[in-house]
Amino acid sequence: MIRHTVVFTLRHKPGSVEEQEFLDEAKKLADIPGVKKFEQLRQVSPKNDFRFGFSMEFAGQAAYSGYNNHPFHVAFVRDRWMPEVEKFLEIDYEPLG
Amino acid sequence: MIRHTVVFTLRHKPGSVEEQEFLDEAKKLADIPGVKKFEQLRQVSPKNDFRFGFSMEFAGQAAYSGYNNHPFHVAFVRDRWMPEVEKFLEIDYEPLG
Repeated sequence: MIRHTVVFTLRHKPGSVEEQEFLDEAKKLADIPGVKKFEQLRQVSPKNDFRFGFSMEFAGQAAYSGYNNHPFHVAFVRDRWMPEVEKFLEIDYEPLG
Repeated sequence: MIRHTVVFTLRHKPGSVEEQEFLDEAKKLADIPGVKKFEQLRQVSPKNDFRFGFSMEFAGQAAYSGYNNHPFHVAFVRDRWMPEVEKFLEIDYEPLG
């Protein structure tokens, strides 16, 4: 199992229509084959200034690569993520031991 | 639900006895009342240089505060975390919407 997470901040004003439209479009990433446990999250720790997170799981590297290379994901990154995300950090986990 | 996560790197040599002892001791955090879904994880993305992660969930802020203030957690942070962790980032999530 690989858990792919990304924590990020949007360029949009908090609570704006543009923010909601971005999140709504991102929900469609859950439909890409191999994506499990897709979650949209609010980052709430005061110890960092990221505002949102996505989390999803893949059975293994083949499914993760299939997601990364899927046309919807490629287009989402190009057309929405790059212009609308101010900053982000990707963190991926596998079970330990 | 609050998901508390921390991604970190130890000062210890990878694969060392000291690394394993730190992780073994940290497993006991799962026994603090209110801690659910405790996980020890390996950070595997090449896009950051953190090496491990812990994730746990709390029903709400009261349980999270109870964990933070629990004597075992306070002692773990003082005696193990501060001297043995090189760098870390805490990320906390709540469900969005």
